[in-house]
Amino acid sequence: MGDHTVTVTDNNNHQSSVIQIYPLGSYYFGSKDPIFFRDETVADRVQRMKSNFDARGLRTCVQAVMLVELFNHPHILLLQVRNTFFKLPGGRLRPDESDIDGLQRKLSRMLSVNEDETDHWEVGDCLGMWWRSDFETLLYPYLPPNRKVPKECMKLYLVKLPVSRKFIVPKNLKLLAVPLCQVHENHKTYGPVIPGVPQLLSKFSLNINH
Amino acid sequence: MGDHTVTVTDNNNHQSSVIQIYPLGSYYFGSKDPIFFRDETVADRVQRMKSNFDARGLRTCVQAVMLVELFNHPHILLLQVRNTFFKLPGGRLRPDESDIDGLQRKLSRMLSVNEDETDHWEVGDCLGMWWRSDFETLLYPYLPPNRKVPKECMKLYLVKLPVSRKFIVPKNLKLLAVPLCQVHENHKTYGPVIPGVPQLLSKFSLNINH
Repeated sequence: MGDHTVTVTDNNNHQSSVIQIYPLGSYYFGSKDPIFFRDETVADRVQRMKSNFDARGLRTCVQAVMLVELFNHPHILLLQVRNTFFKLPGGRLRPDESDIDGLQRKLSRMLSVNEDETDHWEVGDCLGMWWRSDFETLLYPYLPPNRKVPKECMKLYLVKLPVSRKFIVPKNLKLLAVPLCQVHENHKTYGPVIPGVPQLLSKFSLNINH
Repeated sequence: MGDHTVTVTDNNNHQSSVIQIYPLGSYYFGSKDPIFFRDETVADRVQRMKSNFDARGLRTCVQAVMLVELFNHPHILLLQVRNTFFKLPGGRLRPDESDIDGLQRKLSRMLSVNEDETDHWEVGDCLGMWWRSDFETLLYPYLPPNRKVPKECMKLYLVKLPVSRKFIVPKNLKLLAVPLCQVHENHKTYGPVIPGVPQLLSKFSLNINH
């Protein structure tokens, strides 16, 4: 147990939820062939989302929150696309696919050497849900008061990392460990969802292992 | 069940957590004698916190997140002090007092006709924890990387309101119902903690009853 850990007093007979965190150095990082991303304009993307919504209804995305330790502070794993925007690892569910199956599939595609081995990701609690009420608007952590049918739901899940593992990342993506204190409320760099992750994690006791 | 409710598909065999919300109009609001607040300078406050820390160690505060429905959108109950700043109902724990006992005591003091009836507040999940590492600094939803011993911990708890009840508020406080969409990320008006509450609630399914 790290000397940085503050034990949360459990004086209500509730079992405190503890997340074990291991050093960045205990993981191996390698690369693999690039994966395909659509290169489309914003207008094309909106048009595609509209067609998909007409055909299949609400679009559901699942994303993973994974933590490692560096300099005695929790860091979150983010993917950087084309040296510009940051995203949590994850993606859109297939029709009738469960959240856990879809998230495991996406994580293996983006972070494993073999994308068919999908069962070695430990998907934990749902941390939060964000909603898009129009194809052109931002995501919000509540259903908008305008009574419109939501077009997209994004669900964040805690994924607990083991003591050690390999991350094999497509060459057109970068996997970065970013300190919680850097993403907190930093909307300019990290968009609408990621800056809220430190708050979503704050009810857990993060146990840093050295 | 309201027609505004979106059912979260439970395709992972997890029980979705549902919060029942009732209209603002189903609650009664009255007033009672003012309660005492220290009228002190910032410097005095810092000095008082330092003395208390030396004597008793970490200061723990507990606060309540309570929701009502208005215009078909969830609203959060906030107290306004001296027509200026907003706070969640709650306050500091006594030495050796449990979170739930302390929160019930504070809620009865601020919102009940009889402050000795403390057992009629249904305290639910801890939603988040915020830390103050120095007496002069803001609260953050993580332990700061500076390895300092934290001086204050603030814990937010969901408090589930029944279908109907009376709120009896001291005359020097105002109790307000503020829409989630107004507090979200509105740090200028609501400070460091309250603007994150919509995110902390987003994993729940809010079931609006009419």
